[in-house]
Amino acid sequence: MKEGLLIVISGPAGVGKGTVVGKLLERNPNIKLSISKTTRKPRPGEREGVNYFFVSRQQFEDDIKNDNFLEYAEYNNNYYGTPKDFVLETLKNGFDVILEIETQGALQVKSTFEDAVLIFILPPSMKELYNRLKKRATETEEEIEARLNIARGEIRLLPKYDYCVINDNVDKAVEAIEKIIEVEKLRTRRFDVQSFLKE
Amino acid sequence: MKEGLLIVISGPAGVGKGTVVGKLLERNPNIKLSISKTTRKPRPGEREGVNYFFVSRQQFEDDIKNDNFLEYAEYNNNYYGTPKDFVLETLKNGFDVILEIETQGALQVKSTFEDAVLIFILPPSMKELYNRLKKRATETEEEIEARLNIARGEIRLLPKYDYCVINDNVDKAVEAIEKIIEVEKLRTRRFDVQSFLKE
Repeated sequence: MKEGLLIVISGPAGVGKGTVVGKLLERNPNIKLSISKTTRKPRPGEREGVNYFFVSRQQFEDDIKNDNFLEYAEYNNNYYGTPKDFVLETLKNGFDVILEIETQGALQVKSTFEDAVLIFILPPSMKELYNRLKKRATETEEEIEARLNIARGEIRLLPKYDYCVINDNVDKAVEAIEKIIEVEKLRTRRFDVQSFLKE
Repeated sequence: MKEGLLIVISGPAGVGKGTVVGKLLERNPNIKLSISKTTRKPRPGEREGVNYFFVSRQQFEDDIKNDNFLEYAEYNNNYYGTPKDFVLETLKNGFDVILEIETQGALQVKSTFEDAVLIFILPPSMKELYNRLKKRATETEEEIEARLNIARGEIRLLPKYDYCVINDNVDKAVEAIEKIIEVEKLRTRRFDVQSFLKE
């Protein structure tokens, strides 16, 4: 059986990553989502093993020591990390695996896992990103401006990604990612020339 | 306007490249085929400017001197080459350009034109390639064996290509190439981050 593909998806807050990834998983039973571990406390509605595995700082640091993460990072005094075992095993079983992680983790993954495919989801424009954040109505104008600044920093890292998909329309964004996955599997490095010639 | 994509298609004799490329062009008015120049004499049914531009050895060597080729090579004492002007101008006008050329020329193109996308068309198996060559019924068993040997040599170069598409079914092969073209246009190197952030 051929190994699955490791797909890393990032994009600024407000771009609609969650919706896109949700629909992608719904439509493609062959794609599995990696659940991150975090030391952050669960927010209302978040469920253990669905949104995150919630662990203590001690447990997380033990995992770091034991080299159990594909990538991890610390934000606002909380750790977030991708458990290595689940990813490697699921790939080996022929499933594609999606990591929905931020830029810092994504670039870590690429440096250790060269075959990972990095996809950056963009809003149609910065103005539209502002509108989407504004619509959430959960943040002050100041907080929105801070988020836009973070978004600009993330978007500057886009050249380190393989593909960018503009989320103008969720279905189209999902289809674009499906095509990327399909086409990445046609890469010659996944093809075994020697066995083909021996057949 | 965004530049078109340069797509190079190779594959062993008998694999059905011509049929695949013909259908691809028919379905995609945005894709143009580059016509090669050759010093070979036209075969029955071949037309000037459709199959090739037929030129004299002197004209071809003048073109070489004037750096008019994107790639060229000599086979069986005949030159074959891709005129540079047509390709560069057509790409600039936003069309995608297909070169249907053999491996030697393909690798030349990649070395001077890094953004070219190299696609190798494979038969479903070596046995099936033999059957297809046999069906043509224009060649002796010895000639078929010689062709298979050439094919093996070409297939060994497949790792230098970007993608391989198995021509099991013409429509599926055409769709795979269409998806490759679509997905290659989502590559981050084709995206202008600076103007996006300035918008």
